[in-house]
Amino acid sequence: MSVDKKPVSLITIEPKVLSIDAMGGDLGAAVVVAGMNIFFKQNQDVKFIVHGDGAELEQLLSKYPDLPKHCEVRHCDEVVGMTDKPSHVMRHGKNTSMWSCIDAVRNKQAEVAVSCGNTGALMAVSMIRLRKAPGVNRPAIAILWPSENPQGHNVMLDVGADIRAEASDLLQYALMGASYARNGLNVKRPRIGLLNVGTEDHKGRIELQEANERITEQAENANFEFVGFVEGGDIPSDRVDVIVTDGFTGNVALKTAEGTATFMRELLRDAFKQTPFSMFGAMLAYGALRRLSMRIDPRRSNGGVFLGLNGTVVKSHGGADASGIASAIDLAYQLAKNGFTAKLAARVANGSGIGNDNNIKD
Amino acid sequence: MSVDKKPVSLITIEPKVLSIDAMGGDLGAAVVVAGMNIFFKQNQDVKFIVHGDGAELEQLLSKYPDLPKHCEVRHCDEVVGMTDKPSHVMRHGKNTSMWSCIDAVRNKQAEVAVSCGNTGALMAVSMIRLRKAPGVNRPAIAILWPSENPQGHNVMLDVGADIRAEASDLLQYALMGASYARNGLNVKRPRIGLLNVGTEDHKGRIELQEANERITEQAENANFEFVGFVEGGDIPSDRVDVIVTDGFTGNVALKTAEGTATFMRELLRDAFKQTPFSMFGAMLAYGALRRLSMRIDPRRSNGGVFLGLNGTVVKSHGGADASGIASAIDLAYQLAKNGFTAKLAARVANGSGIGNDNNIKD
Repeated sequence: MSVDKKPVSLITIEPKVLSIDAMGGDLGAAVVVAGMNIFFKQNQDVKFIVHGDGAELEQLLSKYPDLPKHCEVRHCDEVVGMTDKPSHVMRHGKNTSMWSCIDAVRNKQAEVAVSCGNTGALMAVSMIRLRKAPGVNRPAIAILWPSENPQGHNVMLDVGADIRAEASDLLQYALMGASYARNGLNVKRPRIGLLNVGTEDHKGRIELQEANERITEQAENANFEFVGFVEGGDIPSDRVDVIVTDGFTGNVALKTAEGTATFMRELLRDAFKQTPFSMFGAMLAYGALRRLSMRIDPRRSNGGVFLGLNGTVVKSHGGADASGIASAIDLAYQLAKNGFTAKLAARVANGSGIGNDNNIKD
Repeated sequence: MSVDKKPVSLITIEPKVLSIDAMGGDLGAAVVVAGMNIFFKQNQDVKFIVHGDGAELEQLLSKYPDLPKHCEVRHCDEVVGMTDKPSHVMRHGKNTSMWSCIDAVRNKQAEVAVSCGNTGALMAVSMIRLRKAPGVNRPAIAILWPSENPQGHNVMLDVGADIRAEASDLLQYALMGASYARNGLNVKRPRIGLLNVGTEDHKGRIELQEANERITEQAENANFEFVGFVEGGDIPSDRVDVIVTDGFTGNVALKTAEGTATFMRELLRDAFKQTPFSMFGAMLAYGALRRLSMRIDPRRSNGGVFLGLNGTVVKSHGGADASGIASAIDLAYQLAKNGFTAKLAARVANGSGIGNDNNIKD
C-alpha cells in the first residue's frame, strides 16, 4: 500500500482487529458477512478474523470486492446450535466457530469478539476461555435500552449473567456500566441509577441499601454521577444513562419491556385495520410508523456486551439482519478503538481497592 | 319499595354494600361521585357507604336524581394525602376517610372497600384494621395486566405489598390469584405461571424451584392449571391468566411496562408529527389510536386488589377519571357478589393445610 499520495498522519494507527463468529445466527453466515460489509463500507480501519465453515465463508466473501483483503478466515468444523446446552458446549465445543472466535481474543490476536450465537453458550465459553478480570466477582451482561436521553439509549446491567448480586457486585456493575457508557456510548460523565421499588433511601432489600451507600462513596473517584434509586418507569427515561440491577430483575425487566412493545405493536396493527379511514391513515403514516418500529425494537439496539472478563465480547441478537450485525460490529469497533478492555480492568481494580491508580478517567 | 309490578324472584337478593373512600384521589370527590353514578346507571343492586367531607358529598350527590337514595354518607374530618407516610397514617389516621372506609368492611357493614388514595397508606391501614386472614403469611397486591387472552387481562401478584417472598408465599399467591381470577374475571380454571428468567425447571433462585414443585402439587386440588415457569415476555400473552412473583420483581415489571408503554406513546405521537402525510394519516386513524391508547394504559385496567386480609380492598389509580372509578367499583361489586372474601379465606386455609374442606371449587 502506498501512502505517499494520502495526507500523512504523524501517528501510526493500526487497524483494529475484530473476531467474528459467522455461524450460529438464525439467518446464517451470509447475513453476517453482509453486515461486515455494511460496516466496512463506512470504515476501512479494521481487520476481521472470521470463524466458521471455510469454503462457505470464502465463497460469501468473494462477492464483495475489497472486504476479503481485510479478512482472515479460520475454518471450524462445528457450530453451536441455538438449543445446545451451555454445559455441553463447555465440554465438547472446542471445534466450534464460537470457541475459535473467543480464543482469538484470548490469544490477543483480536481485541473484541462478536457472535450471534446462543447467549448461554457464548457466556459459558467466554467465562472459561477469557476468565474473570482481577477483582471481578460476577461478570455481567449489559444491554442498550432505547431511551429519551440524547444518545438514544441507556445501558442496563446485569440482564442475566447471574441471578444473584450482593452489594459489592452492584457496586462493580456501576463501575463497569459507567466505563461502558463512556467508551461505548461516548457519555463523558454517566448518570448511574440503582433499580429499586421506590426512590426513598429506606426502600428495597438490604443489599440495595448497602449498595446505595457504597456507590455514593465511589461516584466522585470513578467519575460518574449517582442519581440514587430509580424505578422501572425510569429505565427508558432521560434521568439516567446506566441502570444497575441484579441479573434476575434485569432479565425480567428486559423481557417484560420486549413483551409490552410487541403487544403494543400488535394492537397498533389491529387498530389500523379497524376502519377504511384508519387503514388509509396507516398507509399515509407508513414511513413514520416504520421508523417508530425500528426505534423501539430492543433487538435493533443490537449488542449485549459481556463485562468483567479478560476480553470484551459483543453478543448480537440471534435474529439480527445485516444492518443489525453491522451495528453490533460498530459497537465492538468503538470499544476496541477506545481500549475498553484495559480501561474497564483498571476501573474495576481501582474501585475494588486492588488497583493503585486514582487518576484513571475512563 | 313495591315489588308487585316486577317479575318475582324466588331468591331474595340483597343489594351489595360497597364502602367508598371519596377523598384522596388526584381529581377530587366530584370525580369519585361521578364514577359511582356511572356504575349505578348500569346496576342498581348496590348500596354505597361514602366516606369524606359530609357537606361536600351531600352537595355532589344531590346532582344525581336516584343515586342519593342508595348512599349513606359518613363524614370524616381528615384526608390522607398522596405524600403522607404510611407509618404516620397508621398512628394518626383515625379520623381520615380512608380509615373510615376500611372500618366499614372491618365492621361487616360493607363487603368490599374502594379507595383512590395513597397505596402505601391504604395497604397499611388495611393491614392493621382488617388483619391477615388465617394461614396467610404475606398479603399481596394483585393487578390486572392488559393481555392477549379472551378476558383481555391477566392477573399479576404480588406487585409490591412485600419485597420478599418465600416458596410458601408464592404458593399462597398462586392460590389467591386463582381464586381472584375465578371471582373477579370469571375464569373458571385459571392458568397460573411462576415468573422466572427461563422456562426450564432448573432455572432461577432456589425458592422458585421449591415453589414450582409445591404449586404443581396443589394445582389439581385447587382447581387451576399450572403452566410452570413463565418469562417477562409472557406477561401480556395468552399463555397464562395469573402470573405469580415476589413483590420486588412484580413492582419493577409493572413500572417497566408502564414506562415502556408511555415511551412508545410519545414516540408514536412524534412519528405522526414528522410529515404532513403522517399528520393527515393520524387524523384519519384518530379513533382507532384512541381506542388503542385506552386499551394499553395500565391505569385503565383500574383496580389493584389487596389479597389475604379479612376483607377485600380495591385500590383505584389515584389519577383515575370517572369511568376509571366506575370500573374499580364494578370490580368491587363482582367480588362482593361472588362472596370472594370468604371463598379466598377457605381456599388459602385449605391450601395451607389448616382448612378441612377439599371440595371448595372457587
